[in-house]
Amino acid sequence: MANKTDLKWLDMAARLAERGRPSSSPNPAVACVIVKDGIVLGRGVTQAGGRPHAEALALAEAGRAAEGADVFTTLEPCAHVSERGPTCSHSLAEAGVARVIIGCHDPDPRTAGSGIAALRAAGVEAQLVGHLPSAESLAGYLARAMLGRPHITLKLALSLDGCIALADGTSQWITGPEARAHAHRERARADGILVGGETLRADSPSLDVRLPGLEDRSSQRLVLTRGDVPDGWRALSSPQGVAELGDCQYLFIEGGAGAAAAFLAADLVDRLLIYRAPIVLGGGRPGVADIGLAELSAAHDRWQRSDTRSLGSDTLEVYQRIRS
Amino acid sequence: MANKTDLKWLDMAARLAERGRPSSSPNPAVACVIVKDGIVLGRGVTQAGGRPHAEALALAEAGRAAEGADVFTTLEPCAHVSERGPTCSHSLAEAGVARVIIGCHDPDPRTAGSGIAALRAAGVEAQLVGHLPSAESLAGYLARAMLGRPHITLKLALSLDGCIALADGTSQWITGPEARAHAHRERARADGILVGGETLRADSPSLDVRLPGLEDRSSQRLVLTRGDVPDGWRALSSPQGVAELGDCQYLFIEGGAGAAAAFLAADLVDRLLIYRAPIVLGGGRPGVADIGLAELSAAHDRWQRSDTRSLGSDTLEVYQRIRS
Repeated sequence: MANKTDLKWLDMAARLAERGRPSSSPNPAVACVIVKDGIVLGRGVTQAGGRPHAEALALAEAGRAAEGADVFTTLEPCAHVSERGPTCSHSLAEAGVARVIIGCHDPDPRTAGSGIAALRAAGVEAQLVGHLPSAESLAGYLARAMLGRPHITLKLALSLDGCIALADGTSQWITGPEARAHAHRERARADGILVGGETLRADSPSLDVRLPGLEDRSSQRLVLTRGDVPDGWRALSSPQGVAELGDCQYLFIEGGAGAAAAFLAADLVDRLLIYRAPIVLGGGRPGVADIGLAELSAAHDRWQRSDTRSLGSDTLEVYQRIRS
Repeated sequence: MANKTDLKWLDMAARLAERGRPSSSPNPAVACVIVKDGIVLGRGVTQAGGRPHAEALALAEAGRAAEGADVFTTLEPCAHVSERGPTCSHSLAEAGVARVIIGCHDPDPRTAGSGIAALRAAGVEAQLVGHLPSAESLAGYLARAMLGRPHITLKLALSLDGCIALADGTSQWITGPEARAHAHRERARADGILVGGETLRADSPSLDVRLPGLEDRSSQRLVLTRGDVPDGWRALSSPQGVAELGDCQYLFIEGGAGAAAAFLAADLVDRLLIYRAPIVLGGGRPGVADIGLAELSAAHDRWQRSDTRSLGSDTLEVYQRIRS
């Protein structure tokens, strides 16, 4: 069991890890904090392209003071030798740290416990904590490693009565500028963005990121279709095709109702991001098409709200798929 | 301008007034608090059937100590002589109170300013405050007096994607027991409960109140239909028919989608009560049928969220119609 203070530092590391996303891709966005006597001596987040690793940066910042310090890291330090540098478990042992507190086990077979073993063999106390915020900060990496697919977010911009457009298709705008800016930030954090075939044909969405400083953030553009796709787009013939998206850790589904239903019906949505506008459309287009639900009871106990906040006059509701 | 302390006492009176509803009907549920040197000397809420009035009860509780005290009342004290007792403005003046701070003007032509005039003529300082919580606690009375119809709440029990049932009509249950109990409490506070004709035929709802201690609370049962209705039900041929509901101050619309749409299209909904379950039904029955919306912009700036709370795993969202 980690004590309360340890958990506080791990929480800090998990929050810090947010900064590594998505530029660390294809490597996981790990964060590391080195602490002695309650003072932070070094911090690091996996850098663009995956190197340097978080631990290497934190050790460089701490310097010699790292000796005898506690190290908090969201993921098990690597143990597989690479030509790009020494392993983090080796570097931590070399620096003479006292303890390494680890948020998540690394499922990568090249590490998978050998990072912890290497630390212990070198006389470093290594402790693995089942730390939920760390796991959440690594959701895409863990989904790839353990499920063989990206972590999948479905975004819906809905009226109070669940519509995404008027009956004639008009959808600009359901939500206000604050909610749309938030959705652009979420889009910028994804490795892949997907729309349904009908949405692509009807709206020709550019899916670019319209936020200052993030305009050059280009995610892979995907479309759920069995047909042809324009240049710059990749086709997925079914939701199960996400398994083939090599390095994609985070997939963001933009709609429409058909794509949303296809992924929900395949139980391939991990997170719902609902931007809810304070409007009633009555008879508009529903945001989710038929998902083939046979019984009402099957709809329950699948989603748990993890966040809700106001964005202008809209509300953001975040739900996580409960997988026990 | 009322000072901060005055507003605090008026807020207290407005909260107290909740207890008078719905038993005070057909009279408004008024509350009165008598205060001297920061100490509450008397409190009153309009009693069942409308008498005694709030001020009479508060004065009786305060007794002689009311002399020189401040009186906070949600509605202008009555000034029309009745065979059921002296007017409240007369009683307050008789008791020698120093000030009467009033949350709302009484639109009843028999009072309508003459309560305040009577107090002032008797040497009592009378002050009218535009106090929103008081107005909200009197919403049904004010709607009747000023709009000639009840205050109308539309209740919707919806999935995240705005459905009230599966495609086959199954709707038991969308929401959990906490949300359903809350809806029963809201039902118990209404003078009339309305369902659509289709809902009546399909579900034969009893609309009784299944809460301990409130089982005998029977509201008028209404159905929106041009057809025949069973015994114990009254038909409304259109939403505009609410003007004929004599003493009904609070109308509660239980659904279904057609009745909801009819009242929304007629702009006859003052308050939305949305019980939102954390489920996705995808292709289920929408909660609101066509409301004939021609432009998306017309849907905006109509609803403002006034409350949101968790009820078990469901969420209650309350929206008020913005009428400027």
